[in-house]
Amino acid sequence: MELTLEPRVVKGFRFAGVASGLRKEPGRKDLGVIVADRPVAAAGVFTTNRVKAAPVVVAQERIRRGHLQAVAANSGSANCFTGKAGIKLAHNCCAALAAGVGCAPELVAPCSTGVIGHLYDFKKYCAGIRDALGALSPGALEDFARAIMTTDTHPKVASAHLKLGGAEVTVAGCAKGAGMIEPKMATMLAFIVTDATVGAPDLKRTLKRALPQSFNAITVDGDMSTNDTLLLMASGAAGARVLKGRELGVFDEAVTAVANALARELVRDGEGATKLVTIEVRGARSAADADRVARQIANSPLVKTAFFGCDPNFGRIVMAAGKAGVPLDLERMEVKMAGIRIASRGALHTEALAAAAGRMKEPEFGLTIDLKLGKARASVVTCDFSFDYVKINAEYTT
Amino acid sequence: MELTLEPRVVKGFRFAGVASGLRKEPGRKDLGVIVADRPVAAAGVFTTNRVKAAPVVVAQERIRRGHLQAVAANSGSANCFTGKAGIKLAHNCCAALAAGVGCAPELVAPCSTGVIGHLYDFKKYCAGIRDALGALSPGALEDFARAIMTTDTHPKVASAHLKLGGAEVTVAGCAKGAGMIEPKMATMLAFIVTDATVGAPDLKRTLKRALPQSFNAITVDGDMSTNDTLLLMASGAAGARVLKGRELGVFDEAVTAVANALARELVRDGEGATKLVTIEVRGARSAADADRVARQIANSPLVKTAFFGCDPNFGRIVMAAGKAGVPLDLERMEVKMAGIRIASRGALHTEALAAAAGRMKEPEFGLTIDLKLGKARASVVTCDFSFDYVKINAEYTT
Repeated sequence: MELTLEPRVVKGFRFAGVASGLRKEPGRKDLGVIVADRPVAAAGVFTTNRVKAAPVVVAQERIRRGHLQAVAANSGSANCFTGKAGIKLAHNCCAALAAGVGCAPELVAPCSTGVIGHLYDFKKYCAGIRDALGALSPGALEDFARAIMTTDTHPKVASAHLKLGGAEVTVAGCAKGAGMIEPKMATMLAFIVTDATVGAPDLKRTLKRALPQSFNAITVDGDMSTNDTLLLMASGAAGARVLKGRELGVFDEAVTAVANALARELVRDGEGATKLVTIEVRGARSAADADRVARQIANSPLVKTAFFGCDPNFGRIVMAAGKAGVPLDLERMEVKMAGIRIASRGALHTEALAAAAGRMKEPEFGLTIDLKLGKARASVVTCDFSFDYVKINAEYTT
Repeated sequence: MELTLEPRVVKGFRFAGVASGLRKEPGRKDLGVIVADRPVAAAGVFTTNRVKAAPVVVAQERIRRGHLQAVAANSGSANCFTGKAGIKLAHNCCAALAAGVGCAPELVAPCSTGVIGHLYDFKKYCAGIRDALGALSPGALEDFARAIMTTDTHPKVASAHLKLGGAEVTVAGCAKGAGMIEPKMATMLAFIVTDATVGAPDLKRTLKRALPQSFNAITVDGDMSTNDTLLLMASGAAGARVLKGRELGVFDEAVTAVANALARELVRDGEGATKLVTIEVRGARSAADADRVARQIANSPLVKTAFFGCDPNFGRIVMAAGKAGVPLDLERMEVKMAGIRIASRGALHTEALAAAAGRMKEPEFGLTIDLKLGKARASVVTCDFSFDYVKINAEYTT
């Protein structure tokens, strides 16, 4: 399998990203569409926040049938806390795209991201849809990725290429971050398409396998969005046979690899982030215990500001681990920062701290906590908490 | 009842705060003692973090007997993650103070705050205890409060004066913040003393009543310290009769008022804080639901940075409320920012946002969310998230 952070053509799908004027900044892309040549198998996962945006409600209902032919995604407005008018707007937008594509409106999934509490201009949207349909191209995944950006600094795409089911198949995707990120089912917006031949029930299962190792294993600020959506669609256009058994396992791995690459890119581009830190908790009694400890550390403002300051602040790590409420034995626990053991057997290795601080200057490093109580493990990818996180979020207006 | 943010003499107690050299900054007070004229009734609550500092372990055991005669509290080191040596150090420190006071070591409670993973110098500590015993004075509560400060910018004291049980009695206390604050049982270090006559079982009950309305209703960063300790001691030296029935209710109110005043001062002096915001959730189905929603809002980095930016960012508020996982009805919910209704009946009142933003420039305001689903309520006091929070915590070293 060949994995890259570049887009790739996926047979059976075309993409576009255009500037429709939904955003204030003139000329900024804000409307993206994905169109399949015909109805394709599809699966999705959505936010578990009790507050769900209108497009989430609509997309969730439509994905149940297992087929989609198009996706309409906009930035500039989340279409959330917009009541019945918001639901109607999402329906109308899908109908506008369906009319252009020539498919049933039920085969179009809507997605939105941006500020909450506002509707957007339907006329501008319709004009944008016309432009997008004119710009559709198999090579425009990155344009689509750019259209869904909010505080992201760059578009995020990833693709995998492999032999599977008797053909060369491709899995390609894109995602947007960069704040309000602690997905519990999916990140804000992510789309993965493939030309392999896979049915909707298998796609659903694939997402279930890929999520814990990708979008559900990252955090930027512990805040869960109202618009989280991840869609996976398979055109079967590569001419491969229907995947079964072991082949499905390989497919799962390819989707997981693309999802994981996108998830890491989201954290790397997290609001104000200067460092990508993989928190790994080993030796826990259960995977749930390991996950709880990893998340407490990954979301602690004190730990995250210490990452920013290149400070191997063991005290904050052990504090955060302790508030997870799971059994700990301080006499056994071992902590490695950026590969350097800074605590073990109940003692802090002060002589090792300077070297650890030095390695923390790297843009990417790991923090490993071995609880030495069992065999379970979990990891969460997080970023640091910088001046720029505060700046971005104190200035981004309603 | 007369409540002030000033210290007051509490009969039967003397205080001191001295510079013993446990901290690097020369001349900075770092060791505080409270000494009662004789053994007094005492109760305490401690951190629920699974990682407990050595002084917490020792103090927790000693408070069980219901009596104390002295408290030894130091800053500069938390004496946490210090294994058996840490426990021994805490015992030795109590013994040193007990010898000077002339009481049993079991009547001394130790408390520490500062960096984790280090022991402090016992010789310097003993010299400090000697100095402190020489400086003991009924009027030195503020010196004691100053000695326990870490990143706090000023000492926090509060006192209440009232007629109770046939005498004039005083309740006075002090506390230190300012980061790692989301107490689940008590804040980092807080001490309240009174000259009223109350037994240990009643003091315990008083704390149970006072906590939910004071230290357990505040948050700075959602991080729970390993050293949280709150001690309450009653000398009975005011000459009042033993409190019973309704008088105990009045006493509870006085302690709650002092605890609440101290708790608010902690948040006001939260690391980098520029604003004090009281999040009130009303109309919930249960107090637990209300508390969960209030805490999610109070700890959301996106909400807190919006406070800093004077941005009435309704989207972040509703996002944070939604991730609490409790039932919400967006069509009914009403949100008031700084007294101005910014959302109700499923609609955002965009025309009201400018006025709300203007009021958010005040150093203190409220955010009220009425869920309109029931009669339960809860409130949590929080602060904003500023550049200085990041600066303080990126630079504070291990």
